[in-house]
Amino acid sequence: MDFTGVYHKTTEQMSYALNEDELIVNLKTGYDVKKVFLYYGDPFEAGILGGKEKWTGTKEEIVYKKYLQHQIWWTTTLVPKYKRCKYYFELHTEDEVWYYFEDGFLTKEQMEMDGRMLQCFTVPWMNPADVNRTPGWVNETVWYQIFPDRFANGTPEENSGDILPWRNEGSVTNEEKFGGNLRGIRMKIPYLRELGITGIYLNPIMEAESNHKYDTTDYTKIDPAFGDEKEFESLVKEAHENGIRVMVDAVFNHCGRKFAPWMDVLKNGKNSRYAGWFMVNDWSQIGKKASTRDGRFYSFAFADGMPKLNTNEPEVIDYFCTVVEGWIRDYDIDGIRFDVGNEISHRFLKIVREHVKAIKPDIYLLGEIWHDASQWLLGDEYDSVMNYPLMSGIHDFFIDKTMGKRDFAYMINRCYTMYMQQCNNVLFNLLDSHDTERLMNRFHDLDLFYQQLAVLFTMPGSPCIYYGTEIAMEGGHDPDCRRCMPWDLLDEEENQEKIREMKKLIALRKEEPMTRSPHFHFPETYDEPRLVEYVKLDGYGHSIEVLLNCSDADVSVKEEGEILFARRYQDGVLEKNGTLIRRK
Amino acid sequence: MDFTGVYHKTTEQMSYALNEDELIVNLKTGYDVKKVFLYYGDPFEAGILGGKEKWTGTKEEIVYKKYLQHQIWWTTTLVPKYKRCKYYFELHTEDEVWYYFEDGFLTKEQMEMDGRMLQCFTVPWMNPADVNRTPGWVNETVWYQIFPDRFANGTPEENSGDILPWRNEGSVTNEEKFGGNLRGIRMKIPYLRELGITGIYLNPIMEAESNHKYDTTDYTKIDPAFGDEKEFESLVKEAHENGIRVMVDAVFNHCGRKFAPWMDVLKNGKNSRYAGWFMVNDWSQIGKKASTRDGRFYSFAFADGMPKLNTNEPEVIDYFCTVVEGWIRDYDIDGIRFDVGNEISHRFLKIVREHVKAIKPDIYLLGEIWHDASQWLLGDEYDSVMNYPLMSGIHDFFIDKTMGKRDFAYMINRCYTMYMQQCNNVLFNLLDSHDTERLMNRFHDLDLFYQQLAVLFTMPGSPCIYYGTEIAMEGGHDPDCRRCMPWDLLDEEENQEKIREMKKLIALRKEEPMTRSPHFHFPETYDEPRLVEYVKLDGYGHSIEVLLNCSDADVSVKEEGEILFARRYQDGVLEKNGTLIRRK
Repeated sequence: MDFTGVYHKTTEQMSYALNEDELIVNLKTGYDVKKVFLYYGDPFEAGILGGKEKWTGTKEEIVYKKYLQHQIWWTTTLVPKYKRCKYYFELHTEDEVWYYFEDGFLTKEQMEMDGRMLQCFTVPWMNPADVNRTPGWVNETVWYQIFPDRFANGTPEENSGDILPWRNEGSVTNEEKFGGNLRGIRMKIPYLRELGITGIYLNPIMEAESNHKYDTTDYTKIDPAFGDEKEFESLVKEAHENGIRVMVDAVFNHCGRKFAPWMDVLKNGKNSRYAGWFMVNDWSQIGKKASTRDGRFYSFAFADGMPKLNTNEPEVIDYFCTVVEGWIRDYDIDGIRFDVGNEISHRFLKIVREHVKAIKPDIYLLGEIWHDASQWLLGDEYDSVMNYPLMSGIHDFFIDKTMGKRDFAYMINRCYTMYMQQCNNVLFNLLDSHDTERLMNRFHDLDLFYQQLAVLFTMPGSPCIYYGTEIAMEGGHDPDCRRCMPWDLLDEEENQEKIREMKKLIALRKEEPMTRSPHFHFPETYDEPRLVEYVKLDGYGHSIEVLLNCSDADVSVKEEGEILFARRYQDGVLEKNGTLIRRK
Repeated sequence: MDFTGVYHKTTEQMSYALNEDELIVNLKTGYDVKKVFLYYGDPFEAGILGGKEKWTGTKEEIVYKKYLQHQIWWTTTLVPKYKRCKYYFELHTEDEVWYYFEDGFLTKEQMEMDGRMLQCFTVPWMNPADVNRTPGWVNETVWYQIFPDRFANGTPEENSGDILPWRNEGSVTNEEKFGGNLRGIRMKIPYLRELGITGIYLNPIMEAESNHKYDTTDYTKIDPAFGDEKEFESLVKEAHENGIRVMVDAVFNHCGRKFAPWMDVLKNGKNSRYAGWFMVNDWSQIGKKASTRDGRFYSFAFADGMPKLNTNEPEVIDYFCTVVEGWIRDYDIDGIRFDVGNEISHRFLKIVREHVKAIKPDIYLLGEIWHDASQWLLGDEYDSVMNYPLMSGIHDFFIDKTMGKRDFAYMINRCYTMYMQQCNNVLFNLLDSHDTERLMNRFHDLDLFYQQLAVLFTMPGSPCIYYGTEIAMEGGHDPDCRRCMPWDLLDEEENQEKIREMKKLIALRKEEPMTRSPHFHFPETYDEPRLVEYVKLDGYGHSIEVLLNCSDADVSVKEEGEILFARRYQDGVLEKNGTLIRRK
């Protein structure tokens, strides 16, 4: 047996309570393992620990599996009668049988050796207070991300002198201001509703110097360039009336240079009563205007205008608890996206979560984390994270032609075996954002663009499109991905055609529960190695099929089922770069 | 390359802050990997996330490794200048080179492919509030576990009628009471000091019906059979004066049937104001006197006299915060051992830890957990756990003659790669307890007995001997492992000889820092497959060697170094079952 391929641990997503009753147990093995059995039962079935009684469990085959690169992911659900569970595995290859315990592999002879202490895997108690619970509504939401300065200007008549004329085409810089504001967003609510959007993710709107507002000056004040408190209150209210939830951006990792406590520190140095709010190493140099690579204080990246807040400090934690409490009370927001969500202390996040969920239990707490976020998703910090691994995986598959459909399957399976099901259900799936080049910019090809969106709209979690995606806006890396939304050009037939295509995908996501379902598998009906195929299931015998022809040639496919979305498909031929989603 | 053998994750013990400055990074690979390089650096070295800049790290070879069963554990320490770190691995087999990222393995060509998104491993920020900190004194402590009713009776003249005469020999039951008490323990403090003991772990002493006291009646009252509050206060004070710390047993998973809130529930049913303190499923049946296998309420094991406390409930958490606060304030205890420490809710433990550490920062919080306890040892619950996996591993090696010295090394390496170094340093190492048969009972052989103790006293963590181990007391599984300490027989030469042997090991542990050091390796100087050899190092070029002849024949070993402890060794011959510890 390929021993090194076998892995199980009773932590994180390998073994966890899905709810108060169900326990999910996952196991990784090499491809050589053909059958897996689980022996499980109550740890006290035979007697107390350390005693001389011999414990034996109930044997059950594990039948569900996913294929990862080089490994199989076996999965099963148990319902421990007394909330406790003890187990070990029996692994079968073609010609071997091994017993897998916490301390390794035993032969049948060793397992039955008199007096041997069998170190079983143990889930001691499924405590309700420890169950990872995430908000149910997120999985049903289709998000639309808005970068406020560039989305819509609702009060052009009030433009101040530093506002540039709206630019319907061409690049932008981070120094230019175009006057997009909350009134503008409010006025576009009917447009978003018509598109099918049910959630808005807003980039920061609190007072800040820059146009991107990631350098907060005042966490309790709406930036005057965007409007005022009343305006935001009305925006959220109207969004809610139109079935649209609102998530705001919380920049708690660092502040802007005009944030009052930082100004006080700049003025009073280590005697400032806010000295502990930041992470200063050399008090004599803090006023210097230059990169913080010298380490005089810690900041976001090395930006001296974005000093890091000391989220280890109880006072800072208290302060932000009050800030978010105010946001919920005053505006009734539905979600909070934590900027640079991985650098904030775990302690901060645990306390803030506790505080916030007590006020609004179904609020969605989303971390900006680009890498494996397991340690933030154990149920007491974020509900989920921005799914950049999925974005990267899809992108890499499209550019790397050495990867076949199986690599695509491994990638998707990896993304959906990283976290507990509760978190997967509310993953924030995206293909681009204000922090990346735009999806359309990567290949400049509408067919590839919709192929990737077809994946986005059929994955577990909830999809988010970046404003302008409905017209396949172009835009390079920051700052070019933040171009103005060209409202004056929207009526052009080319754009209307794209909007119709986007609406189809959004409607499909909303009307067809199988698009949102956590259940999927990857059949291999066709030989073509870059014809991606996967099936989504609802668990009641229904399914939809997604086919993406990522090869260099047209491929004949079976003619069957009801077509739900198609591009470059006709009469059984899925052309190169074609997409086909159909009910089986 | 053996791809399935390669494993890294940025969580738990694989990648963690050892302190505010040092980051430990561990990697598992198969045996086929011959060299490992790490590329690491600040995540923002080249620019912000999602941008088009190309990040490159600093290359460094990882040279330290341990062998596990089937896998190599590579380990290195980094000091990230700005508290952030991003990295990937370069793996060399005899004839291949692969690059290992969070999403899998890349060839050099793939890694350099234009536009590919490289998903590096990321440690975003080493926040001081999240560093796992454990009390420094524990590693220097030698523990002595006392089961109060059976250790020493300090007031025989006050024996009540239900106290049996002290039984110096033979079995005992759990129904018999022998009158051991706190005064007895106090009187034996000089004996323990003389033995070299620096920590007492006391089985429960709070009021309870049984003799083992794991069925608490009153958490705030010393059991009258053991003494009173003043007596315990004096005991701790005198222990402290003699350089001995005191750890108490906290039974918070369940209570006894006479605990007032449970009595109230039995009386008032679901209308009791304590209804939420327990886990009752069928109110109509709670009074029944029988096993709780019917699930009418949840209890420890299936004992109806030990109803489980609902540690999910805020009121229960508050109550026990107050209880432990009182123990610290009134008695100045140094450690708390949490009985059935794995069934208590994580929420309970996090809150209790926060509360207790604020009062006495260096208090030792120890969980009774018999299996992999990773999820309790992340820095915000227990400091460490009872090291039953080590006990089981040592035992299994001694009974299973198919296991060779390499299996012994794999077992030890597994035990010390399960948790972060901070927890390993304060692991509570034991070979027996009130919950197991006694060490001497397993083989009835003094040489094997001391071989195992030699391991116990040279492992990282802190060793604990169960009362009577100094005279190699016999005793089967509970209740027989709880025999009376035969004080009257201690002067017999046979016992004095054993006590001298025990003192040697204790003194060695205390005087020779290398016994306590976390650094060790397993050379293969001798061919004999069951001649266990390992070397402990202090990191300054000094080392001690431990040799255990577990084979069936005498073995010739080099004559070198200063002998620190030896049994069955003479003139270069380590006899069967012999032990040799020497300074190299």
